[in-house]
Amino acid sequence: MYEGAVQDLIDELGRLPGIGPKSAQRIAFHILDADADDMLRLSEAIRVVKERVKFCAVCFNVSEQDTCNICRDDRRDPTVLCVVEESKDVMAVERTRSFHGRYHVLGGSINPIGGIGPEQLHIRELLTRLADDRIQEVIIATDPNLEGEATATYLTRTMRSLGIEISRLASGLPVGGDLEYADEITLGRAFEGRRSMLTQ
Amino acid sequence: MYEGAVQDLIDELGRLPGIGPKSAQRIAFHILDADADDMLRLSEAIRVVKERVKFCAVCFNVSEQDTCNICRDDRRDPTVLCVVEESKDVMAVERTRSFHGRYHVLGGSINPIGGIGPEQLHIRELLTRLADDRIQEVIIATDPNLEGEATATYLTRTMRSLGIEISRLASGLPVGGDLEYADEITLGRAFEGRRSMLTQ
Repeated sequence: MYEGAVQDLIDELGRLPGIGPKSAQRIAFHILDADADDMLRLSEAIRVVKERVKFCAVCFNVSEQDTCNICRDDRRDPTVLCVVEESKDVMAVERTRSFHGRYHVLGGSINPIGGIGPEQLHIRELLTRLADDRIQEVIIATDPNLEGEATATYLTRTMRSLGIEISRLASGLPVGGDLEYADEITLGRAFEGRRSMLTQ
Repeated sequence: MYEGAVQDLIDELGRLPGIGPKSAQRIAFHILDADADDMLRLSEAIRVVKERVKFCAVCFNVSEQDTCNICRDDRRDPTVLCVVEESKDVMAVERTRSFHGRYHVLGGSINPIGGIGPEQLHIRELLTRLADDRIQEVIIATDPNLEGEATATYLTRTMRSLGIEISRLASGLPVGGDLEYADEITLGRAFEGRRSMLTQ
């Protein structure tokens, strides 16, 4: 065990996800050796994030104001809603620059083993938003894994009767990938989802 | 790019060693989601470490006081000095519970490519300590790699004329390891350093 403050720091760092005891120690010693101003900036960044960042009251994306940048942006198409699991996913979709609608962040995915049911997600708020009859299409962009699929299925069932277009992101071969190395589920999906070359 | 505070935190986290952009984002979102008290404790631990922790004036180990716990401990043998590269190494040796002398932390190893020469390390201070004629043995415990070996060789040459016992930690097969998987340099060292079974 180190003396008080160093061990305290190692302990706190070790609680972060993906940081084991060895990494926590390595990072703690980096913090000790590093420029004090840089490290006080890090300390401050953590404090500021906890004090200032909240979740958008409309879409639950992270935001420093009551509603996020995207929800406040009048140029974004209010007729299309992209439903994602996490704020991280909003950023991933934004990076494609191919979606110009709005978002709804569920705050996770349905995972009975982890004790996450539909009522733990922002699904009620999604349905409230859909009551706004400007929304014509919902694109479900949950993760292509078991929990994401379950969530997509649940959402589809819940929204089916609303008369709104509902779609799901395509599964298939990653662009730039190699067919030989695709797992069989992905390859199977790529077959199911094949698109005509003639009608394009 | 995220809004201000979140992106600031991702940037600051991404500057830590071994944390790439993806990990920085993952940790930042963990910090956002986590309990505010826990995260303010982390922020505080970083600040406290920078404000309170310094280096022992005698051995250069990390310490919250002018001299560290070990240097202040009268029960530690003042005749044996273990020379290590980093404070981390002090902890590693302490964990063995087999060394009861004192330490000297060099603050790194000689690495000409990285621009670290003997004058960047606490070697002058080591020689000053050796002027204290209580010290009878120096155990060099630098890392068993190129830089550590170069440092050990340099130290041996520098201290040779002082009439002090100088030793180096044994290199050899790791206990619990498998001879078949040992690299040839380690195995070669194990042969060189073989010890008689008869005189033990």
